[in-house]
Amino acid sequence: MRPLPGFRDFYPEDCARRGYLLDGWRAVACRHGFVEVDGPVLESMDLYAKKNESGAEILGQLYQFTDRGEREVALRPEMTPTLARMVIAKERDYRKPLKWFSIANFFRYERQQKGRLREFIQFNADLLGDASTAADAELISLAIGVLREFGFTRDDFVIRLSDRRAWMDFLAARGCDEGAARAVLAIIDKLDREPEASLDAKLAPHGLTVAELRAFIAAASPEHFAPLLDQFEARGLREFVEVDLSIVRGLAYYTGLVFEAFDRGQSMRALAGGGRYDNLLADLSDGSVNLPAIGFGLGDVVLGNLIEETPRAREKMERALGAAPAAEIYVVIAGEARRREALGLVQSLRDAGWRTDFPLDAAKVGRQFQTADQLGARFAVVVGNEWPAVKIKTLATRAEDSVAHGALAEWLKTAHV
Amino acid sequence: MRPLPGFRDFYPEDCARRGYLLDGWRAVACRHGFVEVDGPVLESMDLYAKKNESGAEILGQLYQFTDRGEREVALRPEMTPTLARMVIAKERDYRKPLKWFSIANFFRYERQQKGRLREFIQFNADLLGDASTAADAELISLAIGVLREFGFTRDDFVIRLSDRRAWMDFLAARGCDEGAARAVLAIIDKLDREPEASLDAKLAPHGLTVAELRAFIAAASPEHFAPLLDQFEARGLREFVEVDLSIVRGLAYYTGLVFEAFDRGQSMRALAGGGRYDNLLADLSDGSVNLPAIGFGLGDVVLGNLIEETPRAREKMERALGAAPAAEIYVVIAGEARRREALGLVQSLRDAGWRTDFPLDAAKVGRQFQTADQLGARFAVVVGNEWPAVKIKTLATRAEDSVAHGALAEWLKTAHV
Repeated sequence: MRPLPGFRDFYPEDCARRGYLLDGWRAVACRHGFVEVDGPVLESMDLYAKKNESGAEILGQLYQFTDRGEREVALRPEMTPTLARMVIAKERDYRKPLKWFSIANFFRYERQQKGRLREFIQFNADLLGDASTAADAELISLAIGVLREFGFTRDDFVIRLSDRRAWMDFLAARGCDEGAARAVLAIIDKLDREPEASLDAKLAPHGLTVAELRAFIAAASPEHFAPLLDQFEARGLREFVEVDLSIVRGLAYYTGLVFEAFDRGQSMRALAGGGRYDNLLADLSDGSVNLPAIGFGLGDVVLGNLIEETPRAREKMERALGAAPAAEIYVVIAGEARRREALGLVQSLRDAGWRTDFPLDAAKVGRQFQTADQLGARFAVVVGNEWPAVKIKTLATRAEDSVAHGALAEWLKTAHV
Repeated sequence: MRPLPGFRDFYPEDCARRGYLLDGWRAVACRHGFVEVDGPVLESMDLYAKKNESGAEILGQLYQFTDRGEREVALRPEMTPTLARMVIAKERDYRKPLKWFSIANFFRYERQQKGRLREFIQFNADLLGDASTAADAELISLAIGVLREFGFTRDDFVIRLSDRRAWMDFLAARGCDEGAARAVLAIIDKLDREPEASLDAKLAPHGLTVAELRAFIAAASPEHFAPLLDQFEARGLREFVEVDLSIVRGLAYYTGLVFEAFDRGQSMRALAGGGRYDNLLADLSDGSVNLPAIGFGLGDVVLGNLIEETPRAREKMERALGAAPAAEIYVVIAGEARRREALGLVQSLRDAGWRTDFPLDAAKVGRQFQTADQLGARFAVVVGNEWPAVKIKTLATRAEDSVAHGALAEWLKTAHV
């Protein structure tokens, strides 16, 4: 009677919290001029295996199988391959740049640990067809906007900017060919997550040490990033970003700018991450579609945990959830003789747009008022002997009024403002 | 570069239409006092295979496989087993009756045909813990409300009510045991979809003919349904329902009342279907949880097709989609010297809640106005030599105004009302 390990049931309170995240993502993306897209949950294995652009780690975690039509298929582990496929197929139909976002669930057979699930939801946003620093800033501003939407400030998170090209130049100067450079990037990605001795052992064949990498990170001059940082300055968002070359990102398809959003608390979890993948579309389309692109993803699990742990964000969420009760109006049936009239009233209130509930079976009036309170209703409308008049009780104040049932809609409209 | 057969990509215009359906479902369910739940996309095969409550047809269409942990798993083909599992696990935590709805995607390896996909979205609503006719009416009223929400009237659809118990009584009187009765119900479910001769051949072993079944359907007295019909009468919804015993539903777990929503057009497609499954929870929990239940499902594909084909519904959708343009405000940068100021203005408009877009790269002013029109923007705000003043153009009327940039937010607030 339990879901599979790593999968979640969403009971009403869980679903409300999930809806709060999704609604926030969607609202901020729309304010930034992004439009929503989505693809199928199941994709052909070809999409992931052919070019192996995602990297071996994700391939090793795929939920893959053979379908009833003998196709090799997989549950999507990330959005970018699907997005690239969709853009390649139809990009001619759309004005550039494309500013697309999606809210979708993904599947990875992960070892179970905090913040990792096997089915999780991600917000993804991508800007395609513009290779400029202005595009970089536009996309990263959306990431900042999404986090601010949930009540987080510069005290809670920071976006760390880096650039793979800086590393590629450095590693080329140190004699690494492209294959070696990719291997070293994968090691840098683990810099704070593995013991130094083990990393040094992995770096030795490339003639490098952890100390040398750390020295390069420490010496990073923000001059390279000056035009980008100026964009954030102009937007009033400079305090949300900093340069940190230790960010390299795990996925293989990134080509230049990469970034991660970190929570500033002790745990320093990555909340979001992304970067430029200017070659992916050309690679996947054998050169027929060549669009520069930048994108990022942000998952629901870490974000949800951080909201719970941050009082300002948690209170904001609780206010929002409290403002959407299961019922706004509860129709109390004070005498079963008037049940038919009450049913008609319930229907008219619902048709007028009110979240309305009522007792399906005969119940004592006191019990009905209890239910009204439990549902978070603002008003109880009592149908009884006074019909065609009804009594209205404002539940917070216990104030009472009485109106003809035909005048109820008007009364509520005024009371609600 | 295409999705798997039977699966869909949702480009911006597709995603907007999908969003219109989902938002409508959610709004109507909330007005009826239902709260949202969801479960995982992937479930243990046990959930479907153990009791085989769904029926053999669905089992034969399952996307099932063995995961990396040697578990037999399947993509969910319908909501009811997941819902039953969730209710059994935690029903003690919730006040009865449960009024739960979900909006989720499902997977069936169907033969491809119009209105059938392999991944589709369904609205499901269930009312658990109340076996009364009042509960039946409440649940079916929601189905009616959902269809009315999209602009459909009694001229467009009808809910056909039936009851499996009426058939079970009739078939028992004709000497069928329970197994035989179930077999006959499956034949009745195909009554209008298979040639009469072939059905008669299948009925012969049970001592029945199609003519006899049709006679029973024609003789159906609505007296049995009088209390239920009276509930719709009281709600002003009587014209949306009729009795039709030819409805029996394909799933094995239904125990009593069953119903389907049909479009009244020539195609007479089923738009939604559901019924009582009073024994399912007890069966699945080996008797530990015994809650009566009624529910229905409504898919996005047939509903979407009917909206497209019904002028009133299509116009309603197009109005709603037109009211949510990709951008409300387009900031025109009339001189690159003022790009930094424009960026600050864009940020402040977005922070104030406006869907705002602007050109990432230098472009001629005429071109920028074109883009503003294409995005459906209501206002163009021109940043140029007049700074710190900005020019505001109302795009529909080409009316112009000029305000200090600091006063723009106030100007927009007034203009928008």
